[in-house]
Amino acid sequence: WRYKVDEVHADSSTFVAGVSKSQAYDQVLTQATALFAHQTNWVCNTANTASLLYHALQALPSPSNKVNWAGFYVLDPSHPNQLILGPFQGKVACQTIKFGKGVCGAAAQSEKTHIVPDVEKFPGHIACDSESRSEIVVPVMKEGKVVAIIDIDCAVEEGFNWEDMKHLEELAGLLADACVW
Amino acid sequence: WRYKVDEVHADSSTFVAGVSKSQAYDQVLTQATALFAHQTNWVCNTANTASLLYHALQALPSPSNKVNWAGFYVLDPSHPNQLILGPFQGKVACQTIKFGKGVCGAAAQSEKTHIVPDVEKFPGHIACDSESRSEIVVPVMKEGKVVAIIDIDCAVEEGFNWEDMKHLEELAGLLADACVW
Repeated sequence: WRYKVDEVHADSSTFVAGVSKSQAYDQVLTQATALFAHQTNWVCNTANTASLLYHALQALPSPSNKVNWAGFYVLDPSHPNQLILGPFQGKVACQTIKFGKGVCGAAAQSEKTHIVPDVEKFPGHIACDSESRSEIVVPVMKEGKVVAIIDIDCAVEEGFNWEDMKHLEELAGLLADACVW
Repeated sequence: WRYKVDEVHADSSTFVAGVSKSQAYDQVLTQATALFAHQTNWVCNTANTASLLYHALQALPSPSNKVNWAGFYVLDPSHPNQLILGPFQGKVACQTIKFGKGVCGAAAQSEKTHIVPDVEKFPGHIACDSESRSEIVVPVMKEGKVVAIIDIDCAVEEGFNWEDMKHLEELAGLLADACVW
């Protein structure tokens, strides 16, 4: 991709208008790989990854550019079977989510990616932000256990497809391996 | 302020256009107090605080609405005298900063708020993002030691004044007390 991978710079989250979804995710994965090469701190790495994802999706045509929240929930060190808010880009978000509750909790419990084309039709949806209309949640699995989830919300219905899923699952694998959780 | 403080919701980072800087920071402090009331996790609390700050400043007239980065660096648990990136809103950022380096490192070392009207004139400025033109950094002090810094960048010169400093120092005190660092 067009950016050097040996420097950390805000330009790594500058995405050229007109790139395809595949190209944008390629840039995210290339930059994330470079960022994680010498850094294992999960807070630092998820903070930069949320920025990469948010700016990548904003650079794409609709519906991707209607993404209004991109970030992470991680295992709550204080409460078993509960997620707690990690780094994100977007508006203020729910602090904790029990396993099994809402789309995030369902993905964490089932250990499977959830693509929800219309969150209002998802049983037990947690409406942190009434603007959100669709959502994708991808578990980050380390040694067979969920350590975090990638959560992205979109302000229009059907914001995500198989292509988001494919690349985000690759990113989740990268994060799982790169970070000390 | 106009929002209920007993619920966590994206609306808490919705700031009405036309509010004064003082009113916007009042909303930040009110919402932060509510968010921290039952939550001591520093990652969760700084993630929501970065969102509150970024959206508050975006709602104000220039220069505040030219803020292009708002977030946190914390003590690096792996390296003494080094800061590591925490939750933020904006583009990808430098992962680690040594005490004494750049504006963030200077504020951490001196334990004093730094307002820099023109970052290009600051000796040793770290240009994570060439768009940034001015900066404010406020240390978060717990029991006499720096545990984190609040860092905000603006894309125009002279983005911050005594009013930002006053309210951000209050916020830093709130964060210091509320979180387990």
